[in-house]
Amino acid sequence: MFKNTLIIGCGLIGSSILRSSIKNKISKNFYVFEKSKKNKQIIKKINSKIIFVSNLNKDIDKMNFIIICTPMSEYKFIIPKINKLKSENYVVTEVGSTKRNLINLIKNKNFVLSHPIAGSEVSGPKFSDQDLFNNKWCIIINKGKKNKINLVKKFWRKIGSKVILMDAKNHDKIFAITSHLPHLIAYNLIKTAQDFQKNEKKNLIKYSAGGLRDFSRTAASNEIMWRDIFFNNKDNMIKSIDKFIKNLNLMKKNIKLEKDKELKKILINSKKVRKQIITLKQDVSKPNFGRNI
Amino acid sequence: MFKNTLIIGCGLIGSSILRSSIKNKISKNFYVFEKSKKNKQIIKKINSKIIFVSNLNKDIDKMNFIIICTPMSEYKFIIPKINKLKSENYVVTEVGSTKRNLINLIKNKNFVLSHPIAGSEVSGPKFSDQDLFNNKWCIIINKGKKNKINLVKKFWRKIGSKVILMDAKNHDKIFAITSHLPHLIAYNLIKTAQDFQKNEKKNLIKYSAGGLRDFSRTAASNEIMWRDIFFNNKDNMIKSIDKFIKNLNLMKKNIKLEKDKELKKILINSKKVRKQIITLKQDVSKPNFGRNI
Repeated sequence: MFKNTLIIGCGLIGSSILRSSIKNKISKNFYVFEKSKKNKQIIKKINSKIIFVSNLNKDIDKMNFIIICTPMSEYKFIIPKINKLKSENYVVTEVGSTKRNLINLIKNKNFVLSHPIAGSEVSGPKFSDQDLFNNKWCIIINKGKKNKINLVKKFWRKIGSKVILMDAKNHDKIFAITSHLPHLIAYNLIKTAQDFQKNEKKNLIKYSAGGLRDFSRTAASNEIMWRDIFFNNKDNMIKSIDKFIKNLNLMKKNIKLEKDKELKKILINSKKVRKQIITLKQDVSKPNFGRNI
Repeated sequence: MFKNTLIIGCGLIGSSILRSSIKNKISKNFYVFEKSKKNKQIIKKINSKIIFVSNLNKDIDKMNFIIICTPMSEYKFIIPKINKLKSENYVVTEVGSTKRNLINLIKNKNFVLSHPIAGSEVSGPKFSDQDLFNNKWCIIINKGKKNKINLVKKFWRKIGSKVILMDAKNHDKIFAITSHLPHLIAYNLIKTAQDFQKNEKKNLIKYSAGGLRDFSRTAASNEIMWRDIFFNNKDNMIKSIDKFIKNLNLMKKNIKLEKDKELKKILINSKKVRKQIITLKQDVSKPNFGRNI
């Protein structure tokens, strides 16, 4: 597809893209810009042909495909360099989890925004996986040149993703609910449990298999990535937190007054969502995620 | 250990106890009281020697070990029958998730309260597992005759559990945080997502792999069991909901004012809990619970 591909930032997502791009022969040459020495040592072992670039200002001009995979808080240092690019024979994409914040930052019609719905609670190239994007959704924002959008589409499909177009506003609204709020709630539940432990001087982590453990996985996600997401999707976060609290107060009332019918209706309705998720193959169907503990 | 064992209520927990008790030769004879015809058909296939009893008033007197595994809302019909038992050569236990509510109901010193920390989002004997209690905690409430407590301890250990003694008050406080609040929060998050779908007319379930899916598993749990738990642990639920909302408002403030240091501190601290949970073998250590989707 490309002669020279550059991945800027090679953590879990960047190095998984690197692996799947090598596997699917996306490019002739693969360049990587990565600050961490430790990460570089791991990336070297992926393939001997990977070329490390040390200066974006010097090396960026010869690239045909650029994928930015750093935390979004780094974009303010990288995107100005992209905005200055002179040639026309290239396309740029990135993999951030929020989109409206990027629209004003980008002054380059060869730049297409992507969001692969893939990842996990662990970080870094150590955990990279060449099949990470296989059968996963990748959202592409419907803005920029049509031929560049098509090129980015083709790329994600080649590494196994299912592609869907969306506008930035809708994207940020939808993922506030399916991803950002769930993460915030998980962090908040773990914080509440930690407060309880501290105040009551009770060791409760050893009983976490009763429910808390699932939330602890989500709440172990990378703090830089998630701080960036919460700040960049601020207005949707605030709105969804308010809705969550409103519902939680209703739950509290139903419990306090033992409103059997009202409470049971909510609990029964939840089951439908689980069924849909399994039908849509968005989760494993085995009880307890197939865990044996 | 026993001549005649009776399991009252043979859903997921009851039939898993049945399987593990047969495997570990807990009793000479196994009796089952179960209302659902469909469940009975499944239970029959576990072992041909299982005897179904249809009248608790008639058959309960000859039992040496009785385990109540019905939803807690059924206890008001069952415990009075246990309270009337005449012989001394028996021990009774149950597996409910809250304990203070039972203390006043029980007028029988041969009754020992247990809470095995095991189960999943699915219900019924179809999903029963003879190893369900293996290496799991079982809480035993420190009330009743010492020799009966020891007998119940021995039973749980024989089917593979790790036993710990606790008083009812502490039990209900601790499990409000490690189990009951996480379930309520999961139900509430799914409700909030459903409201959003309805109001915004957007299909978002297909993007649930971004975080929501984990909560949907917890929120698919049995509605009768969880209604009973929320009502029976009402005061602890209300207190922990209030603490959760207080923390969530703090999160909201940190996001609104972009309080970088404060927010990051909370996100970093959460990771420690995940590490502890894995060290304590309360969850699988593989990223993403080892799911391949």
